Amino acid sequence: MKVVIVGGVAGGMSAATRLRRLDELAEIIVFERGAHVSFANCGLPYYAGGVIEDRDELLLQTPESLGARFRLDVRVRSQVVAIDPGARTVTVEDLETGDPYVESYDELILSTGASPVVPPLPGADRALTLRDVEDVDRLVAEMASARSAVVVGAGFIGIELAENLRRRELDVTVVELADQVLAPLDPEMAVPVADRLRENGVRLELGTELARIDETTAELDGGRTVPADVVVMAIGVRPETALAEMAGLVSGERGGIAVDDQMRTSVPHIFAVGDAVEKRDVVGGNAALIPLANPANRQGRLVADVIAGRPARAKASSGTAVVGVFGLIAAAAGWNEKRLRAADRPYRAIHTHPHSHAGYYPGAQQMSIKLLVDPETDGILGAQAVGGEGVDKRIDVIATAMAGGVTASELADLELAYAPQFGSAKDPVNMLGYIADNLRTDSIRAVQWHELDALLADGALLVDVRTADEFADGPIPGAVNVPLDELRERVGELPVGDLIVLCQVGQRAHAAVCLLEQLGRPAANLDGGYQTWDAGRRANAPIVVARS
Amino acid sequence: MKVVIVGGVAGGMSAATRLRRLDELAEIIVFERGAHVSFANCGLPYYAGGVIEDRDELLLQTPESLGARFRLDVRVRSQVVAIDPGARTVTVEDLETGDPYVESYDELILSTGASPVVPPLPGADRALTLRDVEDVDRLVAEMASARSAVVVGAGFIGIELAENLRRRELDVTVVELADQVLAPLDPEMAVPVADRLRENGVRLELGTELARIDETTAELDGGRTVPADVVVMAIGVRPETALAEMAGLVSGERGGIAVDDQMRTSVPHIFAVGDAVEKRDVVGGNAALIPLANPANRQGRLVADVIAGRPARAKASSGTAVVGVFGLIAAAAGWNEKRLRAADRPYRAIHTHPHSHAGYYPGAQQMSIKLLVDPETDGILGAQAVGGEGVDKRIDVIATAMAGGVTASELADLELAYAPQFGSAKDPVNMLGYIADNLRTDSIRAVQWHELDALLADGALLVDVRTADEFADGPIPGAVNVPLDELRERVGELPVGDLIVLCQVGQRAHAAVCLLEQLGRPAANLDGGYQTWDAGRRANAPIVVARS
Repeated sequence: MKVVIVGGVAGGMSAATRLRRLDELAEIIVFERGAHVSFANCGLPYYAGGVIEDRDELLLQTPESLGARFRLDVRVRSQVVAIDPGARTVTVEDLETGDPYVESYDELILSTGASPVVPPLPGADRALTLRDVEDVDRLVAEMASARSAVVVGAGFIGIELAENLRRRELDVTVVELADQVLAPLDPEMAVPVADRLRENGVRLELGTELARIDETTAELDGGRTVPADVVVMAIGVRPETALAEMAGLVSGERGGIAVDDQMRTSVPHIFAVGDAVEKRDVVGGNAALIPLANPANRQGRLVADVIAGRPARAKASSGTAVVGVFGLIAAAAGWNEKRLRAADRPYRAIHTHPHSHAGYYPGAQQMSIKLLVDPETDGILGAQAVGGEGVDKRIDVIATAMAGGVTASELADLELAYAPQFGSAKDPVNMLGYIADNLRTDSIRAVQWHELDALLADGALLVDVRTADEFADGPIPGAVNVPLDELRERVGELPVGDLIVLCQVGQRAHAAVCLLEQLGRPAANLDGGYQTWDAGRRANAPIVVARS
Repeated sequence: MKVVIVGGVAGGMSAATRLRRLDELAEIIVFERGAHVSFANCGLPYYAGGVIEDRDELLLQTPESLGARFRLDVRVRSQVVAIDPGARTVTVEDLETGDPYVESYDELILSTGASPVVPPLPGADRALTLRDVEDVDRLVAEMASARSAVVVGAGFIGIELAENLRRRELDVTVVELADQVLAPLDPEMAVPVADRLRENGVRLELGTELARIDETTAELDGGRTVPADVVVMAIGVRPETALAEMAGLVSGERGGIAVDDQMRTSVPHIFAVGDAVEKRDVVGGNAALIPLANPANRQGRLVADVIAGRPARAKASSGTAVVGVFGLIAAAAGWNEKRLRAADRPYRAIHTHPHSHAGYYPGAQQMSIKLLVDPETDGILGAQAVGGEGVDKRIDVIATAMAGGVTASELADLELAYAPQFGSAKDPVNMLGYIADNLRTDSIRAVQWHELDALLADGALLVDVRTADEFADGPIPGAVNVPLDELRERVGELPVGDLIVLCQVGQRAHAAVCLLEQLGRPAANLDGGYQTWDAGRRANAPIVVARS
């Protein structure tokens, strides 16, 4: 058997090494357009910033090491320019010599990846991108004489770049078309990330487009200019499907190569994996582009299993992702509220602001978590978390719960490892389960930060059950302050009508709502309390805009 | 409705506050024998060590605060000494006045906890235990004039105590009857914990009993004495069932109060929760004592739901637990290998030694993980992990997978949040899944460290595929060194017969086994490689002893 693999990073190389372990006799050729295979793609921003000091650290394998260990025929600087599916051949251009040649295959695996989107702006030819080792070499070279940089796009890579450019003490501007950073987060969850960037000297231009790039500056859509010795495009990536399309492979609705759950394309004997293909989304069941390393590696192994005749099928993808930025951690899995609203899908949202570990043990850090729940099935639709230590842990636990079909209420039953430096006896994930269970069983009603204005306009009364000091520190306009511990005695003071109750994070308000409802006073909890409302207010509220 | 709760910590107080939220009109009385309710039990060792500086941090609630917020009638220093289930009354002794009185109930909840076991040694009356705030006050008082301490028992609390006594610069000896520390771990997994304790000046006396306690020393079973200004018993806890037994409640096979999955005891209108009751074990389905805070809190809430007429049932328990010791983290969930062997239950064991995050990003720390798998169902029976950052995360993910019925092989499909500072594109948990899948599909065979001697005696040949330098650093007696990258060429050098292949952690050996098997040479991987074997060797191998 002769297997040809196009693309020698992540998915492609996982396929190659796994296939060798399964089939010592197969002939395996890997063509890689670039000069490097199996490099640490996700480490590139950190090498740019000097966190990873040694460039060799990025180069996890070489053609030689892969040849010695796995008897792989790895050919770098070799671009596959055409596929003949009928003849089962590929045409390869040797980028050193320019000479083309033809190689046959029994099975072909495309791991062509995704390439950064570069908008056709005036001056865009000077913009860099960050996809491979050559890219980071260029960036490092330009940074040497630069004092300022513009990063276009405030997604995962854009934010990692901003942090690392600041590490190099550049003046950094991030330009983002959306009104928020980190699109996978809902706007109120993204606020702490934007704050952290600004606190660390990053100039954030949200809701802004780049108009043009000049020699040492860049012009924003309003006409202002920002210093821009270096410009890096990090708007997003687009599946590299040119080769697939030339060969007649069907693309999916999202523009990636369409594959079945065994990574087969529409053309016999051609498989595809990684950023170039469309995955199946775990929440919607629809096609999704998820350009992440974990699924790429998983698919690489899976396609080798399939080619070797082993039963294996891809699972639907939750797109779990995490980013660190100036010590803050932001992570997400599944769908966010914006997307659920846009798809008109019913959901319940839960916001909490728990501590990373027991409050009585030093060093506990507050995080914010948001859980999205299917009101019909109690299934988990998605989760987001932002904060310090333990954010990645909680999202991993929730992503695992999603994979295992654990319902939102059942999060209460998870037995998570507890000692005071690692969590709480009621872990933040358990607390989400408790709240989900309260909502599921209708023992409490909650309203969202972006629903508050309309409800108040309809005559609801806002009751703030925090202490007088907390209330004075940050009241919501129109709220009446009755501290929780005085509520039993003072309930008579509250005017007749629907009540919305808030506290700092939602916990005291929950006790208050329970009390009020039993005293015959209809009441709902302002989900996530003052903290979520305040973040939402500062977020410029695009969730509400999206609703109309 | 009048509900009486015996015990005002964890389970009892969770029940009380939840019940109030569900039923504003209920009369709720909480009797607590000690002077404090809702204190931070798990924080006691850290207050002793000065990590938690302020004693008030331990006191999460007071009777007054609970009265104000939840209208609870909390009576401390009040010991319930008898129950009359027919009359539905309890007899309470006011420990301040000595006066007994009777209180009626409609529903009674016992949250009596568990008490430290103190063996009847000569001199044991001077030994301290650590269960409540009074205990830690005594310990702190004694430490003030002490220069040495003996901790009896190397379980979670014993180890936390040892660390914290060292923080106070005491000379610390830990005496443990078993041949290893931390019984929830298998012996080879406990070795790094013992190492860490010794590296930090703790004298470990394993396989040793305390014979007697004298004025400033303690005598070990061999006759040696160790300095012992302070002696703390941390052998384990025993459910406090005296009250329950007097009232005629049925105890279970493990000596805890028997309850159904709605926390009902054998006597109508009496419920029990927390350390005093027997839980159902998630692996064996049998009764288990799991004296941990997370289940206690969960049960407290659950019993309130049941009393309030809401459907709720306890899930089986995996006993997930974690401990930190001098910067090392050890965590476990489900069953360990010792227990599986003792129960004659089939299993597969998998050992790995992955890094906490991508190796190319600075600061990655190696951890050890062990996964136990049901060979029939591929279900996860248990997991253990020891190392630095990220150990708690991986055990939480696996515990969640167990709760969700994710099989061992399906761990490969989990999408866990990856950026190089938080994990790897193939996370340690994914890698466990990959290995489990290899074993499940018989694409590889593995042998355990404690099986090696017998296999070598039967004529198997041990092939070490590490580099010559690694081999020279730590060879296993009898092994032949053929580095992996030379194996294809040198396979002819290997004598005929069964091969056992090892490398440092098991990954290169896997590639070697795949290669050898396909070349017609039967081969098995020494699971976990040299590192697991070396730990097992140093562990004094009680797993093998247990087998016979």
